[in-house]
Amino acid sequence: MVYDHIQQVDPLDSHDTAHLALLARPELGITFSKIHCWTLTQYTKCVFLDADCLVIKNVDELFEREEFSAAPDVGWPDCFNSGVFVFRPSDETHRGLLQCAVTQGSFDGGDQGLLNIYFKDWAFKDISKHLPFIYNMTSSVSYSYLPAYRQFGNDVRIVHFIGMAKPWLYSYNVNTGHLQPPEGIGSQHDEELIKRWWSVFTSQIKPRIEHEQEIKLHLKPRSKGQRSH
Amino acid sequence: MVYDHIQQVDPLDSHDTAHLALLARPELGITFSKIHCWTLTQYTKCVFLDADCLVIKNVDELFEREEFSAAPDVGWPDCFNSGVFVFRPSDETHRGLLQCAVTQGSFDGGDQGLLNIYFKDWAFKDISKHLPFIYNMTSSVSYSYLPAYRQFGNDVRIVHFIGMAKPWLYSYNVNTGHLQPPEGIGSQHDEELIKRWWSVFTSQIKPRIEHEQEIKLHLKPRSKGQRSH
Repeated sequence: MVYDHIQQVDPLDSHDTAHLALLARPELGITFSKIHCWTLTQYTKCVFLDADCLVIKNVDELFEREEFSAAPDVGWPDCFNSGVFVFRPSDETHRGLLQCAVTQGSFDGGDQGLLNIYFKDWAFKDISKHLPFIYNMTSSVSYSYLPAYRQFGNDVRIVHFIGMAKPWLYSYNVNTGHLQPPEGIGSQHDEELIKRWWSVFTSQIKPRIEHEQEIKLHLKPRSKGQRSH
Repeated sequence: MVYDHIQQVDPLDSHDTAHLALLARPELGITFSKIHCWTLTQYTKCVFLDADCLVIKNVDELFEREEFSAAPDVGWPDCFNSGVFVFRPSDETHRGLLQCAVTQGSFDGGDQGLLNIYFKDWAFKDISKHLPFIYNMTSSVSYSYLPAYRQFGNDVRIVHFIGMAKPWLYSYNVNTGHLQPPEGIGSQHDEELIKRWWSVFTSQIKPRIEHEQEIKLHLKPRSKGQRSH
C-alpha cells in the first residue's frame, strides 16, 4: 500500500485558529501547513516525511523514538532537518506551535526555522532524539563528503532530495533507464538515487494512480475537452 | 601570547612506533601526524585545533568537556569534524589509534576518517560530547544555510576555514582592507570571516614573527645572500 488514509489540510481554512493567527503573518503559510500534523490526534505517535523523501529500507523502528526526534541538518548541524521527524499529535503542542509562529516566527521563513525554535533543546539535551543521518540523508552529501557516503551509504534508509533538482523534474526513459536533468541543472552526483526514485514511482505509484484514474473515469464519464495521459 | 610551547612532531621519525607502523601504509602519513597529540602526556586534558581555525571568542569552557568531544561535520553529520576536539593525552590511546590506523585505516584517507572509526560511539552515546557547532563553524555554512548563520552566527567562537580557499592564500591590503581571492577561486560568501583572520594575523601574529626574526638576525648575522622581508 502507498497510503491508508489521506487527510487534506488547508492553511487558509477560515474556521480554524491557524487562519486567525495567519492573518497577521501571511508569510508563514507554508509553516502552518506542516504543523497541522499535530492535530492528527487519532494516532498516538507519528513519523512525518516531506514529499521529497524516498524510503529505501524499512523504517518501522522510528516509532520506538520519542517526540521530538529528527536528524541533523547539513547546513547548520545544531539544527535538525524537518524533512523527517517523530512526533506525538497533541492539540496542546499544536496550539503552542501556532503561538510560537505568531510571536517568534520562523528564522528561515519555513517550518524548519519554526520547529527548531520550538524544540530548541534538541541540539544538546537527549542523544536518543538525534535520528541517525541514515534516516534523513540529504542527497547532496554524495559530493560534500563522498568518502563518508561510500563508508555509510549502504545503511541509508531514507533519502531526502533537498534543493531545486527534484527527481520528478527529471526526464526518465523507463526502457533505457536514461535520466535527463531539468533545464538549467547540471548533471548531479546523486543520479543513482534519482533512478531509485523513478524505479519506485514507475513500479508502485504510477500503476496505482492509473488504476484510480480508471475508477474515476468509470464513475464520471469524460467530458469533451478532457483527455487521459 | 600566541603560544607557550612548540613541540615539533615528525611522522617519519625512525625511532618511534608510528614510523614502524607507517612503513606498511605510507598513505596514512598525515593521519599519523595528528594522532601524535595523544603523546603530550605532560598535560591532563587538551583541545586540538587545526591550523586553519580562527578563535574569535574565549573558549576556555572547552576544557570542561571530556574526551572525545567534537562538533558534527557538515558533510555527514553523524561524523564529527576533526578540526576541533577535546582529548586526554595517553600513551595507551595513542597506541590504540596507531593500531586502528594500521588494521582498519582511514575511510577518507585522513585523520578524520580514522578518528571517527576509533571514537565511533560519538554519534549516538553521549550528547555532552557533541560540541555545539559554534566551536567549529565550518565557514561554508554562510551559504549552505544562511538563515541559520544569521540566527546563530553571533555566538560563533571558532571558525574553521575548510576547503581550498584558505585565508592566507588571499591577498589582503592592510590599508584599504581590500581582499583579493587566490586565482581560480571566485568571490566567497565568507569574506567578512577571512577579513577577521587577516585582522588577527596583522595585529597579533605578524608583529611577533617580525620580532622573532629580529632576534634571530641579532643572534646570527646575515650572510650575503640573505634578505629580510
